[in-house]
Amino acid sequence: MNKLFGLLLAIGFVFVYSPAMARRVKGTTPKQDGFRMPGEFEKQEKVWMVWPERSDTYRNGAKPVQETFVNVARAISEFEPVTMLVSNAQYTNARARLPENIRVVEMSNNDSWARDTGPTFVINDKGEIRGCDWTFNAWGGLVDGLYFPWDDDDKIAQKICELEGIDSYRTEGFVLEGGAIHTDGEGTLITTEMCLLSKGRNPEMSKEQIEDKLKEYLNLEKVIWIKDGIDPDETNGHVDMVACFVRPGEVACIWTDDPNHPYYKECQAAYKTLSEATDAKGRKLKVWKLTMSKEPVYLKDAGSVDYAENAVPRKNGALCDASYMNFLIVNGGVIAPQYGDEYDALALKQLQEMFPDRKVVGVNTLELIYGGGNIHCITQHQPAVTR
Amino acid sequence: MNKLFGLLLAIGFVFVYSPAMARRVKGTTPKQDGFRMPGEFEKQEKVWMVWPERSDTYRNGAKPVQETFVNVARAISEFEPVTMLVSNAQYTNARARLPENIRVVEMSNNDSWARDTGPTFVINDKGEIRGCDWTFNAWGGLVDGLYFPWDDDDKIAQKICELEGIDSYRTEGFVLEGGAIHTDGEGTLITTEMCLLSKGRNPEMSKEQIEDKLKEYLNLEKVIWIKDGIDPDETNGHVDMVACFVRPGEVACIWTDDPNHPYYKECQAAYKTLSEATDAKGRKLKVWKLTMSKEPVYLKDAGSVDYAENAVPRKNGALCDASYMNFLIVNGGVIAPQYGDEYDALALKQLQEMFPDRKVVGVNTLELIYGGGNIHCITQHQPAVTR
Repeated sequence: MNKLFGLLLAIGFVFVYSPAMARRVKGTTPKQDGFRMPGEFEKQEKVWMVWPERSDTYRNGAKPVQETFVNVARAISEFEPVTMLVSNAQYTNARARLPENIRVVEMSNNDSWARDTGPTFVINDKGEIRGCDWTFNAWGGLVDGLYFPWDDDDKIAQKICELEGIDSYRTEGFVLEGGAIHTDGEGTLITTEMCLLSKGRNPEMSKEQIEDKLKEYLNLEKVIWIKDGIDPDETNGHVDMVACFVRPGEVACIWTDDPNHPYYKECQAAYKTLSEATDAKGRKLKVWKLTMSKEPVYLKDAGSVDYAENAVPRKNGALCDASYMNFLIVNGGVIAPQYGDEYDALALKQLQEMFPDRKVVGVNTLELIYGGGNIHCITQHQPAVTR
Repeated sequence: MNKLFGLLLAIGFVFVYSPAMARRVKGTTPKQDGFRMPGEFEKQEKVWMVWPERSDTYRNGAKPVQETFVNVARAISEFEPVTMLVSNAQYTNARARLPENIRVVEMSNNDSWARDTGPTFVINDKGEIRGCDWTFNAWGGLVDGLYFPWDDDDKIAQKICELEGIDSYRTEGFVLEGGAIHTDGEGTLITTEMCLLSKGRNPEMSKEQIEDKLKEYLNLEKVIWIKDGIDPDETNGHVDMVACFVRPGEVACIWTDDPNHPYYKECQAAYKTLSEATDAKGRKLKVWKLTMSKEPVYLKDAGSVDYAENAVPRKNGALCDASYMNFLIVNGGVIAPQYGDEYDALALKQLQEMFPDRKVVGVNTLELIYGGGNIHCITQHQPAVTR
């Protein structure tokens, strides 16, 4: 009887106790394992952000942009949970400045771009989630990267997965950032040649090899290539400044009718490419126009940005990427940039037409574009698992 | 109709979406809020540890003791989940050395004593848990603390609570460590005067005031005071080297029959105090004897410990605390120190008699006692919530 009891105890033990464990998946790809990258418009679990502090990226010791991050995090947290990752040095400050319902977790970092340093999550139809942990090299490594070193940033994806007990793929040295890709969740991806074929990422790979890699890791059938993005010198033209999926079969694209606008050519070209494209299901895409700011935005007070040996210096009058495209879709909402520009309201109106079932919320992100990014760049959404 | 739909959506939203939020509880105490510190023998959720790396605490660059931590973590993980907190500098090393089922999370720290830097958890009967975030000052602050600074260690309790969405009490500057207290979960606490009345902790408070503070934060009716611990110079005599609760009404106490053993007097005195004590329920305690090592252990190879300006230097021949008492109770198990001493097996046998329903597992922790602690010191258990 005692032996039987012990056996039953042991069996019960095995079934009752199974700790969350984050494995490194080896030898297979998400496609082989039945995982896909969902569209951003699909249901989400939470949003990850990284607290900004680089005084050689942001103006005035990053204090103004910290206020912007607080506002963005607060806006998102009205719709779903937010975790803010923060260096040990800034932990107390971030905790004190952020509302109590934002979770604050220590994590070393080189800068604040969670979209590019966080994992790209993939899900399957069994209610499981995994992470793609791309190699991160600060948008171009030693060729044209924006800072050195970037080792802490490159560890963020792994650390997030480990923190949450999520298995992850370390993608064999393939360099990619989350801002360079948008999917429809049904086999189609949009990206830019300017970025993915740049010399600082995967120069040894052909366009076809890069496409194959994306197809394997994100479970795709088709990649739609836009030629150029709008920031050749920073992210080498991330697609998340240019276009995104609104829902399967529909994309939003940056737009201006003004031939004197500095991004006129890029807008026209991207719109043309997307209007002529078909997706993985053979659908012709519906393309929504999203205005650029009426007035181009140029960097001011660049003198308050620190000098740094290995960071690209910022100069007064540098053109900033005042695209409204870098918004974030959340559960029931859209968090969109505002600049104090005449077209701010138009952009919100256009977004509300694209997303009639979501509440569109604007946040002033002028300070953020001075630093080279926007709302989508500083957030990484974690999709909800579904069955 | 549209308005009604909006209202229903809004109501649904409020009920569906409630993020885990970690508040700082202000103006009340756990006792007032109906929370109590459970006994270590009650059901647990997980165990927290902090990866060792101080080369001025541990021998040979802390490499041998890292192996010990791996062994302790692995032993615990056979019974319940373990999270290992680790500095950014050691993250990759710790992740590679630890089994995959141990969760590794970055957290800055000054040293590796999770029992003393982690939160003391309290639970209520509604299935809720909160943390007590005592002030930590490295066992004596500027009076007789063991290192400086200790600011990262003092933040660990808050960070753990924040990480897990657990509300916490910052205990108004009251200095305490988890190793200084053991409870029966039914209103009784054991501690030592040597530690709690030390000059480096709360010298402005009387014994009665300290007792009141403990009663408020841990929900107690009675504090049993043992006079001395066995390590006056390090933790100022933490009780977890001397005695602990086996279950309500029963305690274990260090013991030696050998009048020449260096801890003979302390063993006799603690045993006498506990044998004469009654608990909060008026029960006379049953006291289990747990042997000390037969041979006292003295520090060897102290020359491999780094010199440091603000750390107490280690010397060859220093007496180490080879008490078997510093074990950890886990779900279905007991993880106990072993030293390669003649009484190793006796200690395991005595523990198995005390805990007939648990599997007693020994781990060699000689390297750990050279650093001044043991299994209980390097672990903080998180109790399971119960209804």
